[in-house]
Amino acid sequence: MQLKVQPIDVKVGKYKVILNTIDAKELGVNEGDRVRIRDHETLTAIVDFTEDMISPGMIGLYHEVKEALNKEWTETVEVFPAEKPKSTYIIRKTMDGQKLTKEEIDILVKDIVEENLAEIEIAAFLTATYINDMTDDETEWLTRAMIASGDTLDFETHPIMDKHSIGGVPGNKISLLIVPIVAANGLLIPKTSSRAITGAGGTADLMEILAPVEFDAAEIKRMTEEVGGVLVWGGATNIAPADDKLIKVEYPLSIDPHCQMLASIMAKKGAIGADHVVMDIPTGPGTKIKNVQEGRKLARDLINLGDRLGMDVDCALTYGASPVGRTIGPALEVIEALKVLESFEGPNSLIEKSASLAGMLLEMGNVAGKDKGYDLAIETLKNGKALAKFKEIIKIQGGNPDVTHKDISVGEFTEDIIAPNNGYILEMDNKRLVQIARLAGAPNDKGAGLLLHKKHGEPLKEGETMMTIYAEKKSKLETAAKSAKERTPFIVEGMMLERIQSFKEI
Amino acid sequence: MQLKVQPIDVKVGKYKVILNTIDAKELGVNEGDRVRIRDHETLTAIVDFTEDMISPGMIGLYHEVKEALNKEWTETVEVFPAEKPKSTYIIRKTMDGQKLTKEEIDILVKDIVEENLAEIEIAAFLTATYINDMTDDETEWLTRAMIASGDTLDFETHPIMDKHSIGGVPGNKISLLIVPIVAANGLLIPKTSSRAITGAGGTADLMEILAPVEFDAAEIKRMTEEVGGVLVWGGATNIAPADDKLIKVEYPLSIDPHCQMLASIMAKKGAIGADHVVMDIPTGPGTKIKNVQEGRKLARDLINLGDRLGMDVDCALTYGASPVGRTIGPALEVIEALKVLESFEGPNSLIEKSASLAGMLLEMGNVAGKDKGYDLAIETLKNGKALAKFKEIIKIQGGNPDVTHKDISVGEFTEDIIAPNNGYILEMDNKRLVQIARLAGAPNDKGAGLLLHKKHGEPLKEGETMMTIYAEKKSKLETAAKSAKERTPFIVEGMMLERIQSFKEI
Repeated sequence: MQLKVQPIDVKVGKYKVILNTIDAKELGVNEGDRVRIRDHETLTAIVDFTEDMISPGMIGLYHEVKEALNKEWTETVEVFPAEKPKSTYIIRKTMDGQKLTKEEIDILVKDIVEENLAEIEIAAFLTATYINDMTDDETEWLTRAMIASGDTLDFETHPIMDKHSIGGVPGNKISLLIVPIVAANGLLIPKTSSRAITGAGGTADLMEILAPVEFDAAEIKRMTEEVGGVLVWGGATNIAPADDKLIKVEYPLSIDPHCQMLASIMAKKGAIGADHVVMDIPTGPGTKIKNVQEGRKLARDLINLGDRLGMDVDCALTYGASPVGRTIGPALEVIEALKVLESFEGPNSLIEKSASLAGMLLEMGNVAGKDKGYDLAIETLKNGKALAKFKEIIKIQGGNPDVTHKDISVGEFTEDIIAPNNGYILEMDNKRLVQIARLAGAPNDKGAGLLLHKKHGEPLKEGETMMTIYAEKKSKLETAAKSAKERTPFIVEGMMLERIQSFKEI
Repeated sequence: MQLKVQPIDVKVGKYKVILNTIDAKELGVNEGDRVRIRDHETLTAIVDFTEDMISPGMIGLYHEVKEALNKEWTETVEVFPAEKPKSTYIIRKTMDGQKLTKEEIDILVKDIVEENLAEIEIAAFLTATYINDMTDDETEWLTRAMIASGDTLDFETHPIMDKHSIGGVPGNKISLLIVPIVAANGLLIPKTSSRAITGAGGTADLMEILAPVEFDAAEIKRMTEEVGGVLVWGGATNIAPADDKLIKVEYPLSIDPHCQMLASIMAKKGAIGADHVVMDIPTGPGTKIKNVQEGRKLARDLINLGDRLGMDVDCALTYGASPVGRTIGPALEVIEALKVLESFEGPNSLIEKSASLAGMLLEMGNVAGKDKGYDLAIETLKNGKALAKFKEIIKIQGGNPDVTHKDISVGEFTEDIIAPNNGYILEMDNKRLVQIARLAGAPNDKGAGLLLHKKHGEPLKEGETMMTIYAEKKSKLETAAKSAKERTPFIVEGMMLERIQSFKEI
């Protein structure tokens, strides 16, 4: 069928076109079907219907199709019904509980990366794998396909070290310490990190305060070879791009299918050529991993998948019921990390966790003897080598290496949250802390966040400050403070929540 | 946050807005989250992101939101992050294999009908119910919620009769005979039908040749009370509208979850107030129901659900491996049905199937004694009462009651498909027949379709015509004929498909 072009300057992230219902019926296609558009080039697009937006005889081309075809208003294209892509049958197989072959997974990942699938098709795939899970073989093939779908780093020097934290615990700024400790001891650690989606600050959000974090794979390789480590944003690279497309659909569904999580984590490690990886698995209420049993299962699965991919994976179940350190939010976290590097001054939880995980990597990389890694990590912090290395990393990424914690500015608007009575802190609600930090503006407002004066298990006197909220905007401070007072993130023993009197006593 | 309005005149069938990434980050919302827009009215919309389509400080309003708010270019609206609707947590429950309560199903169906859910959320729900199914309680509640979500018919006179065919068998024009037979015997049968989505012609596509088929619930009731029956398009009514929204997502996923199919069928029967329903379950290769065991299970489930809803359901497993009658495609099927009504002339398969099912309804409605329904149905065809009633139905729907089969025009372009050798027809491929009819233009071109000269089990001589393809457009005839010759829908015994010689014999 010959149809005249009507450009629709809306980006939909897919090849999509709109047909008038009359033409669609004539073509014999339904909404959600594909059409092939023949021009000098041939392109397959998903069909939307309209009864009035596009006149009969016209075809509405969304931005991506318009760009690909490069046709002007009322120029003519030839349109045919097209077969569904093979991936739709592959997705159907996962829905029917059938196992996929390596070839099928390769086709599926290719179609995901090339935006050939509608979001509802990806949603069906994710839901099916969430419910039916995947075998170890399928998960391995999925990981390999994700690695192959993007850029990879091939270092001449080995071993390559890496570290990953499963999300869920706020204030987890440990990569800012681990990467310099490991690199300072002569190992290569090209660390890609994420920005916060639902959190108050990802490592990339933090590092960005000190230096640019957006680099491509070749730049990451070059910088790592030069100074031993980097701290960059994975989202700016084309490393394992399938993962980003899947997350875009997982996020609104609030699911993270187990096999996808494994594949997603390990694909990023595989793509940078990691030989030795330490996994930080924060465990406890308010984290992704509710208890030690679940943590152990995840650890086994990660180790097993690593083994299949030729990667040496060690896992650390870490305490996740409280934040790491005493700060939440980009600038406050950077200050806390810099203080440890500059003067070995800071909360035990931060220093111990960072040194433990860095120590594991030092042992795996054979620069520390068995059980000597932790001590070497502490030593590397104390003797200033980690700070010196961090300055090199900041410099090579284009930041100012002379920066100190005093140069980092925090939000000018603050409010203290006061203890209403005596007691000690029985529980901290990680999710509430993150919520309040986000209301204050984190991670977008770098200076927004929380400074925790008191933590889990500590005693508290009436009138003492429990935490300080920082914000860059007055209105956000007010919203955050109001929320913190209405529903506190601290459970303090001895705090009477409410008193309900019987009628008799009135 | 105050944002200026930028209308985007694209209909997306949902409340959706586009934010610049900068504003979205400032608001703390991610793609797929909801925002609340406060104006004189308050509205919740799903957020898309853009980096360049909408400038910072603006909010792109898709057609539906623009209509609802009625704001002009650069007027200001106030935007807040909004909670996810409850339905998203309910969908998550189905994904986790948990059972839903009646209240949860009511909320979910309401959100589906009111377009509050993104398509990926509906896709996740359908995939989860496809895999995990629903309990009998859940299916009943779903059906009741679907009935309550739209218009219902409340007749003063009872009983109300209805009939439904599970899809998959081509040429199934039996409703054109059953409705007049049943109504001619004094029973009320307000039959809503579908248009073909993937088939070559639904009952509504056929009836439309004889009379208008688009009426609302009140008109259907009035016409049925007047002449006893109607044959209308369900899609024009607001009867069980949730179903249409679900089908829009099921179609591209090529799934029809068992519980959804049950609820969808029975909701339409419940909403028109049916007391007695006959279910036609075509069984065999090429239909939805592959074998008798599957057919019996479906029958039991339909009867059980009917019982819970206070409906008397009888099921007929019917032969589905070949088309019903000898025609496929709207005009050809109407001609075939009219000939039976006018002069009791036509294929046994059509007359027998129609009279059997009509007979069941006559018995259920107590106008025929036990085992006397079939004979009464045949009698009603032979004595012209069914024809007379059909004319009344055509007339009340606004068609010409004097129409005869000779007035129905078929496609002017025809091509005969010839038997390549002697044999007899071992198998007919329903899906291929539909495919060829669709290539010829059916159901959109009413005159397009197939006339089958030979059917399953019949002998065939070389050079005899097996079928004739009809088309309204020459190019479509050519495409259909080419396809029919390349891959025949008939398996003829004695036909050598190919001969592969060994090297030795050369």
